[in-house]
Amino acid sequence: MHSSSAKSPDTQCPNPKSPSGRPAVGIIGGGQLARMLAQSATSLGCEVIVVENTADCPAASVSARLIKGNTGDLAALRELAATCDVLTLENEFIDFRLLARLEAEGQCVRPSAATMEKVQDKLVQKQALEAAGLAVPAFRSVSQPKEVAEAAADLGWPLVLKKRRNGYDGKGNATVRSDSEIADAWAKLDGDTCELYVEQFCPFTAELAIIITRSAAGESVAYPLVTTVQKDHICHVVSVPADVPAALADQAESMARRAITAMDGIGSFGVEMFLLADGTILINELAPRVHNSGHYSIEGTVCSQFENHIRAVVGWPLGSTELRAPAVVMVNLLGHAEGQGTPSGVSAALSVPGAHLHLYGKALSKPGRKMGHITALGSSVPEALNTARTAADHLYFGTPS
Amino acid sequence: MHSSSAKSPDTQCPNPKSPSGRPAVGIIGGGQLARMLAQSATSLGCEVIVVENTADCPAASVSARLIKGNTGDLAALRELAATCDVLTLENEFIDFRLLARLEAEGQCVRPSAATMEKVQDKLVQKQALEAAGLAVPAFRSVSQPKEVAEAAADLGWPLVLKKRRNGYDGKGNATVRSDSEIADAWAKLDGDTCELYVEQFCPFTAELAIIITRSAAGESVAYPLVTTVQKDHICHVVSVPADVPAALADQAESMARRAITAMDGIGSFGVEMFLLADGTILINELAPRVHNSGHYSIEGTVCSQFENHIRAVVGWPLGSTELRAPAVVMVNLLGHAEGQGTPSGVSAALSVPGAHLHLYGKALSKPGRKMGHITALGSSVPEALNTARTAADHLYFGTPS
Repeated sequence: MHSSSAKSPDTQCPNPKSPSGRPAVGIIGGGQLARMLAQSATSLGCEVIVVENTADCPAASVSARLIKGNTGDLAALRELAATCDVLTLENEFIDFRLLARLEAEGQCVRPSAATMEKVQDKLVQKQALEAAGLAVPAFRSVSQPKEVAEAAADLGWPLVLKKRRNGYDGKGNATVRSDSEIADAWAKLDGDTCELYVEQFCPFTAELAIIITRSAAGESVAYPLVTTVQKDHICHVVSVPADVPAALADQAESMARRAITAMDGIGSFGVEMFLLADGTILINELAPRVHNSGHYSIEGTVCSQFENHIRAVVGWPLGSTELRAPAVVMVNLLGHAEGQGTPSGVSAALSVPGAHLHLYGKALSKPGRKMGHITALGSSVPEALNTARTAADHLYFGTPS
Repeated sequence: MHSSSAKSPDTQCPNPKSPSGRPAVGIIGGGQLARMLAQSATSLGCEVIVVENTADCPAASVSARLIKGNTGDLAALRELAATCDVLTLENEFIDFRLLARLEAEGQCVRPSAATMEKVQDKLVQKQALEAAGLAVPAFRSVSQPKEVAEAAADLGWPLVLKKRRNGYDGKGNATVRSDSEIADAWAKLDGDTCELYVEQFCPFTAELAIIITRSAAGESVAYPLVTTVQKDHICHVVSVPADVPAALADQAESMARRAITAMDGIGSFGVEMFLLADGTILINELAPRVHNSGHYSIEGTVCSQFENHIRAVVGWPLGSTELRAPAVVMVNLLGHAEGQGTPSGVSAALSVPGAHLHLYGKALSKPGRKMGHITALGSSVPEALNTARTAADHLYFGTPS
């Protein structure tokens, strides 16, 4: 159960590199997840340094320092490592071999390269989940188009053809309904150069998600199970508690904990699940990082997924995941058009009592781009949803710059 | 009721100076109050720029930019004004004449120079409060030591001799118990060069405080009344709700609102009050800025004093000041000795469930220096106090660097 790099919490940073004594946390990536991680880390007295190739990224203004560089560039990561006590990340696309190299050079990386190896390749991830006895949609590797047809003979139509790496928000997926659609899907996903796999299409009745934070010592805490509503493969609304019987929520939590333990994860992880009509829960996908389905925890729980991630990677005890209200809803704010990153309608949105606005400070809006989110607490999900939606409806992202 | 610089909320930043369209908020000062203001402003999508003379100040790592300069230096403030849509401040020591000059040059300053003129000189402040019909301890101006003795003849012993400007945390005050102590007190406060005044000593039974946030349009919201416990003139513990009858709390709130309206304040203000044995409430002092007695509002209320300050100065509607729990307690973390700004015992403090740790990131600890605070929510004040104290007791500020 214990991570190979586990150290006792009190000795995690025995000799912080910063002369101030502040634990220095390096974040690979500077988007909104890094931004919210940095805000939590700073409040806990950490020094945050970020690697990102744009100086105007969301995390830049809330970090002590930005190292301008590509998140996949070893030299930039080494520069980060030189001043940081622990490195962490905000996306699953950092090649685990780069992380392994930093570890070999003595750097503490959390989650570890070994965890990233098991999670960032979705085929390997599914195999690891299956090996841990966890239910996942039926899947198989495909190396050429004709293997998709062979898979269909076993798994049935439709199938979902997926890239093994670097997919997000539905980018990297294609639904294939019959033999005649295989060629197009293969070409769309660039199957001749990218490794692909296929999965059984899941006729789910709900999408569920849960955040698990796991410490280096192998303890884990689970956030409440949430219902997520996606639109065009992008998370739109997250509501807590999930609208499922308690026994089912317990089962989902237990599966999620086992999944993160199987990956030997350290930090906050998102676990996305499908609920089928017969009550079966399948794990759809893990994210080895803080996750959009946990943003509600900033106001909605005692200790947010961001603070708990920082606690876990620095080696501190984990905080309470208890809800602060009977219901919490988060609504994503997506760009409407190309234009300014600052929306119109902020004043009207802020006039909605109880709506918590989070803007990510992105310089530019693009259609569908995640620009911010709104969280609302309430006595029921419909009440909280109404508050969050009312505020969100005032905002427009795409004013010409 | 309306401020002379009031504009309608939606037209506050019609042409933001930042090409991104983000409202740019300039904060004069970079201490912990600026740090917490910057964190709120950034989450609302503002760009924060800070003027402070040390690059390693608490607000530096959470602001988009630091202008290195003295907060009393007109050139530095002009540089700030050049890129900011509104200027605000984190302490009452910025000479109002400097602010008036920036206003004359077309800059929006909130609170305004006129408000600062009435608040930063404590004698003028008391006169303005008295003129508004608000109860304050009896006071009078003194320009030479013999006038202290004359004041005692009217007001009785002991008296409190105070500097009219630049006092804080008891620095700038001296209690005078008899004629024979006047000369020492006068010398201690440098009465021959600093303007002083005297106040009746108030035998209070409790110190109360309240945060009022007032918008440019003259609307105000009141936070719950709190009890503050001082030690050596430094705020140690703040607890909510204050242990007073409801009618008295209502009276305190009404007095506080009237006080800030009398100053034509814009933004969050701290109002410190004395409760006497007979139930009389006197206003002790106003702070034209976010205040230590309101730090509990970060977790303790729906919208914190920091977020509401930003909403007020940018021209947005104010948020809810509703409590999130039956009781909230905040305990200040003060330096024990000279040494590292990062405390020992963080891991133990974080193991206390429900304790919210805020460290200000100061490079160095000094005895009595405000290094951070801990907030706890609970079902009663004793319960929340126990949580906060238990966590605070683990921390030691003063490890040799």
